[in-house]
Amino acid sequence: MEDRVYEEVRALCERARACAAALASARGETKNEALMRFARLLRENTGAILAANEKDLANAKENGVRDTMLDRLRLTEARIDGMAKGAEDIARLDDPIGKGDCWTRPNGLTIRRVRVPMGVVGVIFEARPNVAADVAALCIKSGNAVVLRGGKEAIESNRAVVALARQAITETIHSHAADAVCLIENTTRDSASALMQMRGLIDVLVPRGGKGLIRSVVENARVPVIETGAGNCHLYVHYDADVDMAVKIAYNAKVSRPSVCNACETILVNSVIAPTFLPRLKEALDEAKCEIRGCDRTREILPGVAAATEEDFETEYNDLIAAVKVVDTLTEAIAHINRYGTGHSEAIVTNDLSAAEHFQASVDAAAVYVNASTRFTDGGEFGFGAELGISTQKLHARGPMGLTALTTEKYLINGGGQIR
Amino acid sequence: MEDRVYEEVRALCERARACAAALASARGETKNEALMRFARLLRENTGAILAANEKDLANAKENGVRDTMLDRLRLTEARIDGMAKGAEDIARLDDPIGKGDCWTRPNGLTIRRVRVPMGVVGVIFEARPNVAADVAALCIKSGNAVVLRGGKEAIESNRAVVALARQAITETIHSHAADAVCLIENTTRDSASALMQMRGLIDVLVPRGGKGLIRSVVENARVPVIETGAGNCHLYVHYDADVDMAVKIAYNAKVSRPSVCNACETILVNSVIAPTFLPRLKEALDEAKCEIRGCDRTREILPGVAAATEEDFETEYNDLIAAVKVVDTLTEAIAHINRYGTGHSEAIVTNDLSAAEHFQASVDAAAVYVNASTRFTDGGEFGFGAELGISTQKLHARGPMGLTALTTEKYLINGGGQIR
Repeated sequence: MEDRVYEEVRALCERARACAAALASARGETKNEALMRFARLLRENTGAILAANEKDLANAKENGVRDTMLDRLRLTEARIDGMAKGAEDIARLDDPIGKGDCWTRPNGLTIRRVRVPMGVVGVIFEARPNVAADVAALCIKSGNAVVLRGGKEAIESNRAVVALARQAITETIHSHAADAVCLIENTTRDSASALMQMRGLIDVLVPRGGKGLIRSVVENARVPVIETGAGNCHLYVHYDADVDMAVKIAYNAKVSRPSVCNACETILVNSVIAPTFLPRLKEALDEAKCEIRGCDRTREILPGVAAATEEDFETEYNDLIAAVKVVDTLTEAIAHINRYGTGHSEAIVTNDLSAAEHFQASVDAAAVYVNASTRFTDGGEFGFGAELGISTQKLHARGPMGLTALTTEKYLINGGGQIR
Repeated sequence: MEDRVYEEVRALCERARACAAALASARGETKNEALMRFARLLRENTGAILAANEKDLANAKENGVRDTMLDRLRLTEARIDGMAKGAEDIARLDDPIGKGDCWTRPNGLTIRRVRVPMGVVGVIFEARPNVAADVAALCIKSGNAVVLRGGKEAIESNRAVVALARQAITETIHSHAADAVCLIENTTRDSASALMQMRGLIDVLVPRGGKGLIRSVVENARVPVIETGAGNCHLYVHYDADVDMAVKIAYNAKVSRPSVCNACETILVNSVIAPTFLPRLKEALDEAKCEIRGCDRTREILPGVAAATEEDFETEYNDLIAAVKVVDTLTEAIAHINRYGTGHSEAIVTNDLSAAEHFQASVDAAAVYVNASTRFTDGGEFGFGAELGISTQKLHARGPMGLTALTTEKYLINGGGQIR
């Protein structure tokens, strides 16, 4: 890595760190004022943001970026209004900072355990400029400074959005605290690597994006990381399942939004019910133009479908493709899920209470569903309000992460001269 | 790293993982029975453990191991009884598993958020064999399997202790679940490195030992880590401090047990009170044969004391040495602490409410004291019962870690066919 890039990132992190205290000590009402100001600025500057986004889109087209990527990159008036609404929604959430409990020890020491901000949050993301706005808003609310490192495709849009977040902070929280939201303008691979090395300057690093990005961060970071997003999710249809319900849930889990992490990738079905269920499933998926790749036993029931390989069971397609496998027992289904799953969202369709309980106890994942679609794993659907992402690790936060995931605890102990 | 060692460690982790479900699904009363059995076995086999320990001690002496290390390594009847009492104490604690909350969403989905075990815990430790017993007991109670990798000096003692934990499990929880407590018998550096790479097999890795070990784990691990123990702790004596109290707290924080992580290393004193406080401090520390290394202004007031260098302020002495520095303001004291501290325990002596509050809000550490000794940062002293260690990171757990640090959450969602 070039030393120059490392030093540049380091300087930026130090500037963010210098502003962390201003954010951490800001009152709830002041932080909300900053968020409402940010929302207003986003709306007032829609034209300027769209102009910046046009530059990004033009560059991206010139560089032959794929259409799906262009769609993620593209801002519209409605998307900018969505960013503003997001900031307003976050303003309305409870402030997690300062909450806690307290007790008194027999020796008279009083101990308070309170939620405090992490300090400086780092976020590495890809082409979606709305991530910059969402993350800035979540960090303001949780009293954290943030260093953002977005993808090169979105640099102009990110710069425009971040400038407004900085303006909102200086106009409400502290006139010298603009660097509480910093954007790394160097978008080389080196700048991401540098951010991963900032021990003592970055308190937690969150990668938001594809599998490659997340794996790279998890493997290379020397700062604490929260792993998000990888979702190789399964639906298991038990032998006693209501077939109508099973088809409806499978269709929803697979087809309603195949590109997201809580979409289902592999459907497992008990061999007893497979002859009834699979033709119904195929009919539904055919209608949605969703390809099926099946195991040998699936292909006996559904002649003509492609063969699923080992790789298929390992793959998070994020696409209109479903792997299908016939299993003989609940145990086999659980073993398959615990082997290939990424610990995100898993579901069973059954009316058997003990099968449902065994499945929920034995499947090792953040969210385990009985008779419902995996698509519900989401901060909003769980009732948490805004969401930073979905953690697939077990440390610190698991499942949909709200504001609390951006906080830590601190013990404040008061005495009158106690010694041990 | 040798492939053979890697494969050996991998095989052991897989065996532990295969037993994780038996521990995770064990009832609270069964786990407590296992702990009481473990305690009884420790007491009944005191002779065999001491014999194993004798071998370790003989080897260590032959290899010229230092006396302080020998002391950590040495077991006595009393220490083994302490290990048994520890297991009994842990049995009496509340079971963290299965606790949680639940709610119903407007669409009728019921969501339960429950505490579940991590799965497989890895612990790398050094020469103290009691760590093997403590960690095994904590993991049994929290429903986790554990892979232990102790120092080579203690291998015979660890083997004896671990055999009893395994026996206790097979006699109470499940006859085939002995591998829920595994000891890596290869004690080369390669085996520790291998354990750090076991993504998907080790859910959390906790290093327990000196600074070098912890740094190595944090920098090299590719599994989630909880960083424990480094404690460069400070005491700041404000200008209005009660000098008697300040001397008493400084003496206790520095001298009562200098080798532990919550002992104080640097004493900061406001320049207004330094001429009164420092001679009194020196008198007290002299009595304990504690060396002072002072800044220039300290040495003007205390002629003859050694000069403190930059390195002194960075050092966790764990010894009868105190660095002393005169500062002009509370702000300067806070800046020094946030620069040199390790985020463990920090204290102020003052009678000024706003100074106390500002110090507690601005110092970035797990425990921040007003008018009390840093030595209280401890699971027992905080009222948590047994302790896995003291976390100096902000992610997942901060400060003294009880059983909950060995758990994670899981969302169990039940529906009646809901789709999104």
